[in-house]
Amino acid sequence: MEFEHVKPMDIEKRSMEIIGQELAEKGITLPADKAHIIKRVIHTTADFEYADTLTFSEHAVEKAKEALRAGATIVTDTKMAWSGINKRTLENLHGKACNFISDEDVAEAARQHGFTRSAASMDKAASLPGPLIFAIGNAPTALIRLYELIEEGKLAPALIIGVPVGFVNVVQAKELIMETDVPYIIARGRKGGSNVAAAICNALLYDLDSSRGMKKS
Amino acid sequence: MEFEHVKPMDIEKRSMEIIGQELAEKGITLPADKAHIIKRVIHTTADFEYADTLTFSEHAVEKAKEALRAGATIVTDTKMAWSGINKRTLENLHGKACNFISDEDVAEAARQHGFTRSAASMDKAASLPGPLIFAIGNAPTALIRLYELIEEGKLAPALIIGVPVGFVNVVQAKELIMETDVPYIIARGRKGGSNVAAAICNALLYDLDSSRGMKKS
Repeated sequence: MEFEHVKPMDIEKRSMEIIGQELAEKGITLPADKAHIIKRVIHTTADFEYADTLTFSEHAVEKAKEALRAGATIVTDTKMAWSGINKRTLENLHGKACNFISDEDVAEAARQHGFTRSAASMDKAASLPGPLIFAIGNAPTALIRLYELIEEGKLAPALIIGVPVGFVNVVQAKELIMETDVPYIIARGRKGGSNVAAAICNALLYDLDSSRGMKKS
Repeated sequence: MEFEHVKPMDIEKRSMEIIGQELAEKGITLPADKAHIIKRVIHTTADFEYADTLTFSEHAVEKAKEALRAGATIVTDTKMAWSGINKRTLENLHGKACNFISDEDVAEAARQHGFTRSAASMDKAASLPGPLIFAIGNAPTALIRLYELIEEGKLAPALIIGVPVGFVNVVQAKELIMETDVPYIIARGRKGGSNVAAAICNALLYDLDSSRGMKKS
């Protein structure tokens, strides 16, 4: 059993090289403007299926970047997704990340309406000043509620990252979002997760961060 | 596109039913004492591969339960894994969850020794009173450091949950832990993640919680 000798700071770079090599071996060419996102999701999951299932609405990446440059708020459905987002990089862009799942008023609203707390937390988020990016890695009910709020004209997200994981209504909820005019990044099928949601946010953030770095130099 | 009508509180139950059905269709029978753990990981990832790759040392589940009943401390390598652990259930068992990755002394020790911060955070955890459960979902370097501390006689974990994900030294680090005498739950191969680490912790916790419930009734 041999270990690869890679310095701590180079592990991510080496991982991305391996992912690039294996994608090439599989005959997969990623679209240039989305490659950094798809590769970061594969890096986070070791699951090459995402090269096939990650689906982007037209200009989604561009619009996401625009929102982040304008100091977007990222709203997550779980503490875990919130926890995985690189807040330092987000704050450098004057953005912030919010999660309302544990809020008492959300629990109360959920009880009143027979919603999940995840769904009720979307209502609370809808009143935030924009631009809003929703990163949903767990609850299909959050996606369904977003769809309703959009249809009712109460919400116009800059981007929906729709990657809940699971077996009940997950596939359907993702397809619902793909019917809207809202920019989206969706992992078709059952797979996804809070880690995937955070990875997509971070891929968008790191891309902006490095382009900022280049402008400075 | 049809949605399944399932009440919020029943979504998890229904998911577990579907997982059970599909495992049966695949001809997979899970060992009774580990089924709740494997099914919760599949629930978290929608990835049936874990039915094959999750590997348990002899009596690992029993020993984990023993440690949790004795008020174990769960140490994670990431904030995300920490964030996914059900702290309320853990506290009901008089346990707690720790993560040291952002601590200044850990950053300093990492710089001094040329470690990753994940590895350095294991040294800090080694001085905690036991029983200690390590839940490693991200950093193979944390697993390698645990191996060294165990070999040096400086650490005797009650359980290692070794499920880092990735492409560099992940497979090797997991195999290293499987060479020790320490109880382990390992996801062989590249896959895993902070979400998987948290799911395994929660499966162990919920099992104890429900058996407590049954004893009371």
